[in-house]
Amino acid sequence: MEPTARSRVRRLAERAAYDPATVEGILDAGVVAHVGIAWHGAPVVIPMAYARVRDTVYVHGSTASRIMRTLKTGDAMCITVTIVDGIVLARSAFNMGMNYRSVVIHGHARLVADPAERMTAFRAIMDHVVPGHWEQVRAPNEAELRQTLVTAVTLDEVSAKVRVGGPEDEPEDMGLPVWAGEIPLRTVADPAVADDHVLAGVDPPASVTDYSRHFGAGDAF
Amino acid sequence: MEPTARSRVRRLAERAAYDPATVEGILDAGVVAHVGIAWHGAPVVIPMAYARVRDTVYVHGSTASRIMRTLKTGDAMCITVTIVDGIVLARSAFNMGMNYRSVVIHGHARLVADPAERMTAFRAIMDHVVPGHWEQVRAPNEAELRQTLVTAVTLDEVSAKVRVGGPEDEPEDMGLPVWAGEIPLRTVADPAVADDHVLAGVDPPASVTDYSRHFGAGDAF
Repeated sequence: MEPTARSRVRRLAERAAYDPATVEGILDAGVVAHVGIAWHGAPVVIPMAYARVRDTVYVHGSTASRIMRTLKTGDAMCITVTIVDGIVLARSAFNMGMNYRSVVIHGHARLVADPAERMTAFRAIMDHVVPGHWEQVRAPNEAELRQTLVTAVTLDEVSAKVRVGGPEDEPEDMGLPVWAGEIPLRTVADPAVADDHVLAGVDPPASVTDYSRHFGAGDAF
Repeated sequence: MEPTARSRVRRLAERAAYDPATVEGILDAGVVAHVGIAWHGAPVVIPMAYARVRDTVYVHGSTASRIMRTLKTGDAMCITVTIVDGIVLARSAFNMGMNYRSVVIHGHARLVADPAERMTAFRAIMDHVVPGHWEQVRAPNEAELRQTLVTAVTLDEVSAKVRVGGPEDEPEDMGLPVWAGEIPLRTVADPAVADDHVLAGVDPPASVTDYSRHFGAGDAF
């Protein structure tokens, strides 16, 4: 994927990546996307579930929602997925930062009308959140499908940005008696909590009992 | 804070909150903000460090960055902070969802020029990321200050959205032999890793050794 004028990373370009493996790895490891639209000219940023299928990213939502009604028009949009892997503490305030992996997708959403592709998107979004869980649940019925819009954007204009490692201090600060390093952060799943009304004898499936999601630096690379 | 036409939550309005305590609690618990601008009319969403001081949210960045150069013009912008607290698994695909806390701020950034307010913002952003750590590090010098823009937005047009609890299934699905419940998610900090060049005898300060950040559902409420 060649960067465009819009997708080329300008600041700290040494952290930029445009190769599909890096972009796809970050998209697959993230939990929520932050989707940006312009609404009457002003940006609106909303967290949404999403999934990647090959070179396409899907989001879905209610036919009544502002963001889905805007996306379906094909207006310009932006999808950003960020994973914070740690806090980088330098000897100076200026060089404090974070280790992270992020992807920014620019594009125009395509309203997905084909029933098979819509079902692919529903399944992909559930399986992105909890792999393998789609097989466990009741599939969407006609009324539910009518209430739901699905949009797609392809990974044409996309960039990733990745920072790993310790602080980069100024040479003149290296003699300061200041501790420096990284505090790694990761997201963990605690044991699942059953709903009060689960039928007797219905145990959590493997998609739930085996669920774990770690965002520690390096997992995806 | 009264909702405006733009900040009023339309979808699932029962999850909406506009009171300062809820909004401020979420802002204080988040790690990164997703900041949206319109760049040549198209939305761009970028993850950024941030901090709240009373009714103001600050971000900072390089004078060379696209987002800071746009924010300083006072164009419309949006700041969204999201914490995912869990995955909600229902008996149907349609009712799958997440437990989360999010805040969406609409406004126009103000370029912060006053040196004292700029320093307040620098300190607040570092202390938001690692409380108490500002005292440990070398403060910004004149050259670093010249390279950094600080912008502020006030919490005038802001909404929060919070979902907690288990799945909400359709009555007709309650007899299905499908497990349903929640997988709680939270972010944890692993033990800090020192830089190779920390001077002998310099131990990590309490701001590092005591650091922990939990985003488990309910922590902030």
